Amino acid sequence: MTEQVATNITWHKGEVTPAERHENMSQKGVTLWMTGLSASGKSTIAVALEQVLLQQGKHAYRLDGDNIRHGLNKNLGFSAEDRAENIRRIGEVSKLFAEAGILTIASFISPYKADRDIVRKLHDDANLPFAEIYVDIPLEVAEERDPKGLYKKARAGEIKGFTGIDDPYEAPENAELHLRTDKLSVEDSVREILSYLDEQGLLSA
Amino acid sequence: MTEQVATNITWHKGEVTPAERHENMSQKGVTLWMTGLSASGKSTIAVALEQVLLQQGKHAYRLDGDNIRHGLNKNLGFSAEDRAENIRRIGEVSKLFAEAGILTIASFISPYKADRDIVRKLHDDANLPFAEIYVDIPLEVAEERDPKGLYKKARAGEIKGFTGIDDPYEAPENAELHLRTDKLSVEDSVREILSYLDEQGLLSA
Repeated sequence: MTEQVATNITWHKGEVTPAERHENMSQKGVTLWMTGLSASGKSTIAVALEQVLLQQGKHAYRLDGDNIRHGLNKNLGFSAEDRAENIRRIGEVSKLFAEAGILTIASFISPYKADRDIVRKLHDDANLPFAEIYVDIPLEVAEERDPKGLYKKARAGEIKGFTGIDDPYEAPENAELHLRTDKLSVEDSVREILSYLDEQGLLSA
Repeated sequence: MTEQVATNITWHKGEVTPAERHENMSQKGVTLWMTGLSASGKSTIAVALEQVLLQQGKHAYRLDGDNIRHGLNKNLGFSAEDRAENIRRIGEVSKLFAEAGILTIASFISPYKADRDIVRKLHDDANLPFAEIYVDIPLEVAEERDPKGLYKKARAGEIKGFTGIDDPYEAPENAELHLRTDKLSVEDSVREILSYLDEQGLLSA
């Protein structure tokens, strides 16, 4: 290996082109932006989708609260300004991943249309594919599920500014995909996203 | 394709494991942190390295001023606080790319040891490989090169706080690689980095 590594090093002037990157990855980068209420199923679908893509030899990565809130955005709180900055930074990072050729799955409540539109524009301006996936569930079903007991706390006033309770969720009007997760299984949701990626030609170079 | 996509969807509980990710990428993620004076050759080496890795079918991505300063970090200035935050955010993003399995090449002057140590610790704490690459050139050679005329401006007092002129560069003491770029060609510098990656077992799953 070292022998091979040490010989025949050539490169062209300038940066790696998107076409070279796609060829190398056998796919195209994209940001799949999953938005929806807490307990709508975003994370469950994202985790399953990432696994299924990897099984198919595709390169995917998931951005979510777990790897962002305690890292890149750990110095942000929950003021209106910080919430916008939270989504802006995630949008910028998603864009870098999409540019790197990765099937990037961003899974965040992201309740405000203006913030999501900023992320979409970042991608549009860079000619990078972006798809908003509305993970839609009626509030009462989300509240019934309430796996972390957050809705209960919000109703009791122990959490302030909780989306759907005392802070608005602005539903997407032109999402590329609309998944009614009170009716669709996780499996079917993943299938719809895979079909979308395939139709858009993102699963090949 | 759609047929295949639509059948046999299964996944396991929990997140994709590092081993699954490495297997899929046929490599391991790492952050190669290139630090050095302006005009030391960081970007030139980074661009060449990325291309050579892609030619070998490896998955690499470069983070540098061009894609960070106008994007993720566009709301940061040059105060001491903002400089530290600049490197912190880049460190967090590098870590995400390394976790995604990418050979991540971060190329930033990053003059302060404390900031670089924070980035190293981020990776250590997450069990992700990290290598500091000291791109070392004598100041007088960098000043002679001065491709963007920045040293000249700094000497004339038109730019304040310029690393090497009126702001310190704290040289790494324990860098994984030390490249004397006044003596090494770009080709040889790339070779040294490739050999390092190979020795560390990062170019295979």
